[in-house]
Formats: sequence, C-alpha cells, structure tokens
Amino acid sequence: MTVCTAADLDLADPLAAHRDLFVGTETPLVYLDGNSLGRPLRTTPERLRAFVEEEWAGRLIRGWDERWMDLPEVLGDAIGAQILGASTGQTIVGDSTTVLLYKLMRAAVALRPGRTEIVMDRDNFPTDRYVADGVARECGLTLRWIDVDTAAGVTAEQLAAVVGEQTALVSLSHVAYRSAWIADAGALTRIAHDAGALVLWDLSHSAGSVPMALDDWDVDLAVGCTYKYLNGGPGSPAFAFVAERLLDDVVQPIQGWLGAADPFLMGPTYHPADGIRRILSGTPPVVGMLALQDMLQLLSRVGMVAVREKSIGLTSYAVDRAAELLPEVALASPAEASLRGGHVTFTHPLMGEVTAALWERDVIPDYRDPHGLRLGLSPLSTSYDEVERGLQAVREVLDSLG
Amino acid sequence: MTVCTAADLDLADPLAAHRDLFVGTETPLVYLDGNSLGRPLRTTPERLRAFVEEEWAGRLIRGWDERWMDLPEVLGDAIGAQILGASTGQTIVGDSTTVLLYKLMRAAVALRPGRTEIVMDRDNFPTDRYVADGVARECGLTLRWIDVDTAAGVTAEQLAAVVGEQTALVSLSHVAYRSAWIADAGALTRIAHDAGALVLWDLSHSAGSVPMALDDWDVDLAVGCTYKYLNGGPGSPAFAFVAERLLDDVVQPIQGWLGAADPFLMGPTYHPADGIRRILSGTPPVVGMLALQDMLQLLSRVGMVAVREKSIGLTSYAVDRAAELLPEVALASPAEASLRGGHVTFTHPLMGEVTAALWERDVIPDYRDPHGLRLGLSPLSTSYDEVERGLQAVREVLDSLG
Repeated sequence: MTVCTAADLDLADPLAAHRDLFVGTETPLVYLDGNSLGRPLRTTPERLRAFVEEEWAGRLIRGWDERWMDLPEVLGDAIGAQILGASTGQTIVGDSTTVLLYKLMRAAVALRPGRTEIVMDRDNFPTDRYVADGVARECGLTLRWIDVDTAAGVTAEQLAAVVGEQTALVSLSHVAYRSAWIADAGALTRIAHDAGALVLWDLSHSAGSVPMALDDWDVDLAVGCTYKYLNGGPGSPAFAFVAERLLDDVVQPIQGWLGAADPFLMGPTYHPADGIRRILSGTPPVVGMLALQDMLQLLSRVGMVAVREKSIGLTSYAVDRAAELLPEVALASPAEASLRGGHVTFTHPLMGEVTAALWERDVIPDYRDPHGLRLGLSPLSTSYDEVERGLQAVREVLDSLG
Repeated sequence: MTVCTAADLDLADPLAAHRDLFVGTETPLVYLDGNSLGRPLRTTPERLRAFVEEEWAGRLIRGWDERWMDLPEVLGDAIGAQILGASTGQTIVGDSTTVLLYKLMRAAVALRPGRTEIVMDRDNFPTDRYVADGVARECGLTLRWIDVDTAAGVTAEQLAAVVGEQTALVSLSHVAYRSAWIADAGALTRIAHDAGALVLWDLSHSAGSVPMALDDWDVDLAVGCTYKYLNGGPGSPAFAFVAERLLDDVVQPIQGWLGAADPFLMGPTYHPADGIRRILSGTPPVVGMLALQDMLQLLSRVGMVAVREKSIGLTSYAVDRAAELLPEVALASPAEASLRGGHVTFTHPLMGEVTAALWERDVIPDYRDPHGLRLGLSPLSTSYDEVERGLQAVREVLDSLG
C-alpha cells in the first residue's frame, strides 16, 4: 500500500531540487529509461562550448600534454572513488563496454593458463555473452552457462556448484539488465576465488545507482557503462577496473601506442605502461568524456548513500503503486528493495504494444523481451510525480488496449 | 625560389575564405600541426549545444531509433564517398584507429589461413607496428619488416621482394607519418594481391588531404583517423573500410551486440550483421561524431581535388621558402610535390629545442624523432601567411639558439 502520495514524497525528498539540474525535466515528458540513457546536465552544453572554443581551438595539440592525456585516469579515479569503492590507480575510462569486456576477458584467460572454462549466466547482457562466446572460441575454452530465474540472478549455491579447478573466469553482471537483481558480489567473488578463478563484474546497470565496494569485495576485474546513471551522453566511453594486485601481470591483446610505457617515444617495440594505463589502446575519446566529468562531481557532492536511498524510494514507489494501479501486471524484479537495483520491470502479455503507445504520448520507458516494461529511475533526475504520471499512463493505455 | 610572397598567394587562393570557418584563425597563433589535431569548425559549438538540448535531452532514448544508430554508416558512407573513393556500404565509423587496426588485422589473418607472415615497414606508425606485433604473436605468425629511407616509404620493388605465398597481410600507411611520403597504393596493392595476400592501408595521415581511390585500387581493408584533416576533435572515433567482396566472409574478434544482426533481439547467440556493421562492437560514440559530420559536409562542397591543390600549394611554399630562409635545415620529406602528403618535415640537430621555443611563442608545429620539425598544413584552415610566420619564427629561434 502506498502510504504517501507522489506529491508528498517529492516534498519530503531531500534530493528533489537536483532534478532541476538536468535538461528537459521542465517539460511534460515522462522519462523512465535512465538505465538506457541518462538525461544531460544543464551544465553540459556550456561545458562542450567552452571545451571547443577554449581548449580544443585555444590550446590545440598542447591540450594533450596539459590535460587530455590524463583524463582517462583522472575520470577513472573519480569513478573508482565516488562510485566503485576502489582506491586510485585501478580504474580507467576509454573504448566501449564491449571492447573493454573483450580486453579483460582475454587478460583473465591469459592469467589462468591451463584452465578450460568461462562461467556466465544465460541472463547476462547480450554483449557480455557474445564477447565471452568469441573469447572462449578463440582461446579454446568452453562457456559454462548457469540458468537463472527471470526475476533473479546467480546465487551463491548455483555458482559454487559449477566452479572448480577448470574455471578460468566467472563473468557476471552486478545488477541484472532486465530484473535489476543485485548479485551478492562479495560472496560470489569469494566462491570464485576459492576455486582459483578470476571474476569480471559488469557494473553497467549499477554504476551510479547502487553503491559498490570493489576493494572490500576483492574484485579482480570490472567494466561499466557511463551513459546510463553517469549521464555521459549517447555512446560515451566505458570504464575498466583491474585490481592493483593484478596490474603488473595483466596483459590485454590490443597493443596500442596509448597503452605503451612511453607513447611518444614511438620506439620499435611495445612495452606496456605501468599500472592501469596498459588497458588503453588508442587515443582517448576526449570530447565524449566531458559530460561525464560534471556528473561525477555532482555524485561526489551528493554521495552514493543518498543516491541509493532515493533510488530505493523511487523503485519502491513504483512497485507499491503498480500493485494498486496495475493489478494485472506482474513484478519481474525483486520485491525486496535491498535486492533491487535502480530499475523495475513489470510484465504483461501486452507490454510490447503498451510501450509503443506510451512513446507516442511522450512517456518513455523501455521494453525488454519477454513482455517486460522496464522503468529505469535515475535517482537525481526523476521525481515521484514523474513515476506516478508514467504509471497512470500505463493504466490508461492498458484500458485503451482493452 | 619563391616566386610569390605569402600575401600574394593568399590573395590568389580560391579557398582562402574557408580559413574563417574555423575557430581560432582570427588569433595571432600560428598552427602548423593539423595532421595531429585539426582546428574546430565555428559551427561545432552550436552543433554540440543543439545536440545536447534538442536530440539528447529532447529525444532521449528515441534518438537511437531516429538517427544515432545509423550514424556509423551514414558518416562512413560520407567518408567513403567524399574522401576515400569508395562506394557505399564499405566504410563505418567507430572505436579508435588502434582498435580498428586490431579488428581488421585479426580478420585478415583469419581470411588467409595457413599463411605465416604479416609484412610491414619499420617506419610505419607506432600503433600499427605494436598492434601487428601483438596480432602476429597471438596468431602464431611472423612479422616481416621492410626497412625504408627516412624520407620515403615502401617501393614496389621492396614489396615485391618480400611477399610470397607465405604472406597473409601487407599492412602499410598511405602517407608516412614523418616524411609524408605517399605510397603508390594501387601498385602496392596489386603486388600483394599477386602473391595472394590481403592489404590493409592506414589512411590516418592522408584522409582529408590526399585524394584516394580505394575502389579503383582494389584495396581490401583500410582504417583511418578523423581528428586530423577531418577535424573531429581530440580522440574522435576512427573509420574502417572493408571491400564489399570480402564483407560476407570477414569476421572480427570483438563480437559485440552492436555488430550483431539484430542488436535488440538480444538472443542467445551472436550472428554477425550483414555488411559493414559487423565491424562494430559496442555502442556508437555519438557525441564524438558530431564535429566530424560538419567537416565532411564542408569537404564535400569544396571537393578533394581543390583541397589537394591547396595542400600542394602550402607544402610547396614551405619547402621553397625553407630553402631560402633556413639553409641549415634538411628536407626530410619528398621534394617532389606529387609524392608528398599534407605535411612537411625538416630536420636539424636542434629541432627538439626549436619546437619547445616555438610553442612558447604560440607557434605550434610538431616534433618527431630524430630531429624532425613537422609542419602539418590543414588545407582549409591554414594560410600562406601563417606558414610564412611559422618559418620566420623558426629562423628567429634558430638564431637565438646560436
């Protein structure tokens, strides 16, 4: 039962004013897909203008020495500190999530020679599954699949049952892209380590909405996306984490000049850079990193504890209110808030049609097979009223579809 | 001998007015490193603002369906048509030059099973050499090096002497990053093909300054950079070309969702997309592609023939004027304009110090070992007067260094 109205909750929300910091929140559009693409900050257009006119045009090639060359590490360390619970020197920004998955999976397999399996669940995000399939094939390994419930993820028992001395790598998502199930990353990492395997976490659906403690969890490798809850913009670069204890030995296959010890020596042979820079390959995508930087500063001021509290408030409101308003839909996410990330998925046989009709009305959720209406509720840019208007629209569309 | 003064040449230059289209050309700064980073267009800040406020904030996730998903092919086809002499469906924008080199080298090796060598010259750009070294090692091939003169590139005779039935891939730069030597891409491709090998051209230092005819030259594979003469901005994404006749068979190792036949089916197995999209892996870097699009439209209006004519005018002026003004420096680029790309390199034992002193005076060339002052003369944004002021500054600095 909903105790408070959306208006009450917005009034009581200590983060409510942050919504005004994002472009478009002043319009009637209802945006419920923050875990596909976050809204831009109002500071972003001016940030980009200043960059083009002052840094790019003004400093030109000198910008590389002065600031740009360090951006992958500066932003990586900010993500590590603010978002991941990772101390400095372990996180770097670049490439796409897919390319970084490839690099780190290849690196993991090389660190566990003689082992023959990569373990992954069938509900992992498609690009993770596809990359793992390719890496397993080219390295002569087998992919060992774990089946999971639609509304859950891999449990400790499931993982313990399949890992062993044949396991090179366990590759899982921290928050499931459909159900929002939060994996017990610490416990699962321990189970993999007990079998001598490495663990690679995909943090794409948790980074910026669910607090993490990669150092405490003793995580080996991780990747994540910056255009969802980190508001970096369409196709903004990804991030990679490599635990400090692995950095001297980690070798990734795309040996480029920007991952070399001294890129501008331009010498005859590739020697990997010390530390996390060896994960880089090509020139850092500077223009694509600029929006991200402001969002990291905002998250640093707010703090992930407050962000998570608001996120739980939003998803709990959606779950409770849908139970009242949409009795014919089923919750395909954990009912228990502590097990649920920043989005909520509801299923109904008509959800494909519902999503199309909602988009027509400027109500923008996402749709995921099978029959899932997925609401991604960015904590800082979404109001309770926006969720309420979205659910009311679902009600009206379901009624109109008869 | 210089027949005309820089002022005469600027007055007679039919493209002179284009210089005003670029941010920063109104300042006294002398920019002579357009082959490291092109200046931004004046339209770029407004393009970025409009994108953030109207497309990103306004269309949100709908932008993917409406425009963004097609950008890699739309921009790829524009590069193909305007810059490469390649018909549609063979060129795509994404990743970095380094990552695309890796994908295409791996693809080439897979297309020539049983062959044991990759051929490359020792003066190729570092990232090309490093990637090839890694690919050769992981695929069990040998790298066969060709030695070249500092002021030249691989000749037909040199290539013919090393290719054979053991050659899987010949990987060369179209324009050499130090000397600006233009390789005879058509002839060299034919020699490689006669040996049954594939050819991968790195077009980074020619794209946007030297006209190309990839279809006529029967090129197999190519990559290139968009932040030099295509003015995409620091770290803007790269492009890849795959000849249509190879597209059904080409397989690249980074199997990501955006290279899959139907990314949003999110099915259990990766099936590569038909055509050039199979070269993609992760989410297209949309924000980083926006500046590039305007420059491609400008180049399309001007035409590569006129661009090349201006480019030859600028580098010829630099060569002739340096012979008068800087008798103690040596030309490390081809003296013959038809063999020289968009930059010119002059050597002198003090060029390291000269470059540092020039930067202090807001005269920005690049430096490349050994002892090379490299002037990258972007045809549309560089004036003859700017080249003259740069060379005068070199004269003054050499005098002051004694």
